[in-house]
Amino acid sequence: MRAALPLAAADVYDAQHRLRGVAVSTPVLSHPVLDGLTGRNVVVKVEALQRSGSFKFRGAYNALAALSASDRQYGVIGASSGNHAQALALAGRLLGTPVRVVVPHDAPTTKVDGVRALGADIVVYDRRLEDRDAIVERLAADHGYTIVPSADSPTVMAGAGTVALELLWQAPALTAILVPIGGGGLAAGTAVAAKHINPSIKVIGVEPETAADTATSLRAGRRTELATVPDTVADGLRHTVPAPLPWEVSRQLLDGVATVTDLQIGQAMRWAFQHLKVVAEPSGAVALAAVTGLDLPPGPVGVIISGGSVDLNTFHHLVATPPSGKEPAVA
Amino acid sequence: MRAALPLAAADVYDAQHRLRGVAVSTPVLSHPVLDGLTGRNVVVKVEALQRSGSFKFRGAYNALAALSASDRQYGVIGASSGNHAQALALAGRLLGTPVRVVVPHDAPTTKVDGVRALGADIVVYDRRLEDRDAIVERLAADHGYTIVPSADSPTVMAGAGTVALELLWQAPALTAILVPIGGGGLAAGTAVAAKHINPSIKVIGVEPETAADTATSLRAGRRTELATVPDTVADGLRHTVPAPLPWEVSRQLLDGVATVTDLQIGQAMRWAFQHLKVVAEPSGAVALAAVTGLDLPPGPVGVIISGGSVDLNTFHHLVATPPSGKEPAVA
Repeated sequence: MRAALPLAAADVYDAQHRLRGVAVSTPVLSHPVLDGLTGRNVVVKVEALQRSGSFKFRGAYNALAALSASDRQYGVIGASSGNHAQALALAGRLLGTPVRVVVPHDAPTTKVDGVRALGADIVVYDRRLEDRDAIVERLAADHGYTIVPSADSPTVMAGAGTVALELLWQAPALTAILVPIGGGGLAAGTAVAAKHINPSIKVIGVEPETAADTATSLRAGRRTELATVPDTVADGLRHTVPAPLPWEVSRQLLDGVATVTDLQIGQAMRWAFQHLKVVAEPSGAVALAAVTGLDLPPGPVGVIISGGSVDLNTFHHLVATPPSGKEPAVA
Repeated sequence: MRAALPLAAADVYDAQHRLRGVAVSTPVLSHPVLDGLTGRNVVVKVEALQRSGSFKFRGAYNALAALSASDRQYGVIGASSGNHAQALALAGRLLGTPVRVVVPHDAPTTKVDGVRALGADIVVYDRRLEDRDAIVERLAADHGYTIVPSADSPTVMAGAGTVALELLWQAPALTAILVPIGGGGLAAGTAVAAKHINPSIKVIGVEPETAADTATSLRAGRRTELATVPDTVADGLRHTVPAPLPWEVSRQLLDGVATVTDLQIGQAMRWAFQHLKVVAEPSGAVALAAVTGLDLPPGPVGVIISGGSVDLNTFHHLVATPPSGKEPAVA
């Protein structure tokens, strides 16, 4: 017997109402070269153009907006040095909610400065000596903060699911959607929303081959922890085990998980630059990286570029001309 | 006494109808860092995300769609090795209209290949020995082609003006719009459309300081030719004299022309990458480059990024960390 899903389509529609006029309704883009590579119409949903630079804003804002007035007054806390931190900080500023973010001592200064500039309070911990989750829980208990996880929360997953609602409004004929899996919140929200609208649509998660904790867990039939912290250019997807709530959705609703190499990720970032004219971060490009070579049903395929937070040096390094020098002609 | 304008707002609305469901309604993007740099809300209209990679698609498609059925059957001809060529080729493919494009012998192979891949017929001429316009006119006379200029045409300017209709629909409160000037078609269409909707809005053109043929002509009170072909990274804006029809609009409607340096253009491309997550080509970034330091009325300002056609090597070169190493923090 199946366990109940931790979120329903109605939760995603509720999130869409809360995000109306607040989140960017991000564009979908296509290009003949991408269609030519796959033999089908590829419809790319560009969440790199979302506020704060990634889809994470949708979940963070929805989570804060769904709090009671008193909970919102006490404030929220989350742990992240990346997109979730930026998203929480911006959501907090827009809603007048105090935000504390717990970041490791070795987080990039520019990212931390950006979060601080949005008015969030930074708590630094030593990644080698301290337990992040214990710090978050202690501060939450001491101050009455609500903890907002980056994925393992129904309201966060529901906010992420609004990406799929928009995508299927913009491109109703899609027969499949490819979605990055990191914490799993975007994949979970996407699966719930997309299959509510079209039960026969295929939803395929995509992970770096070295960070395939969800693929490994699906094969094992249970949440399975990777032995080591994954080494991949997709810094936002270095998870060793699926979070419980997204996992429950992935287990029941995903039609498969594909994996991609770092080279494929760099190539996808290059496609996004050359053909779509958008900046994709490595973690944000994995679904696009998987779009060739998958066995999908006929029809147009949706691809989510989930974020664009990448600095110029990293970008230059990853998108440099490939060894073969061969690229499809720009059309 | 003022001469009649070569296009009216109604022409731009007609173009909008022809482009409905064909052109991308490109997004507007903002970022707190850009607002902070200028002390006002900066609303960026991203035509780099338009089909074929620039606003040129709007004018080319409108020009072809406005032809009679028999003219369309004979086909069209235009001269360009850049965005107008791509735009014409795509418009021709969508409308089933034969397209010939006259390109110089030293045009980049990848660009020419892209135009050819879209089904256009390429005519190469020797830039050192032959007269481009004479070739275009002879071929048009011999084959019954309609000539579609890149700017000097009412339907092309009207198509370009749909950018401003969309922008003011998306951001009705704008008190000023900054727009790149190359051939002048986008600036002309923008001025006519924007001032029809809001007569008090300021429309400011922007040119590279070394290619300031419109600024020079406005100061002289008549079309004035620059002595030399301008040297600027903005390869799409290397015009020596304003085309007659756009000039007539610029003369009557523009509230001013600002100029920017190549360094400022590189900085604007970097802002677009880091904060907006979009790829701006040098010519496409000049309006964003001018957004600081202008004396504008209070209120939000619109900025048009007109295109994103830039190869990776050129991009890397132009957006490299600036000499001072100083950049505003990412927020």
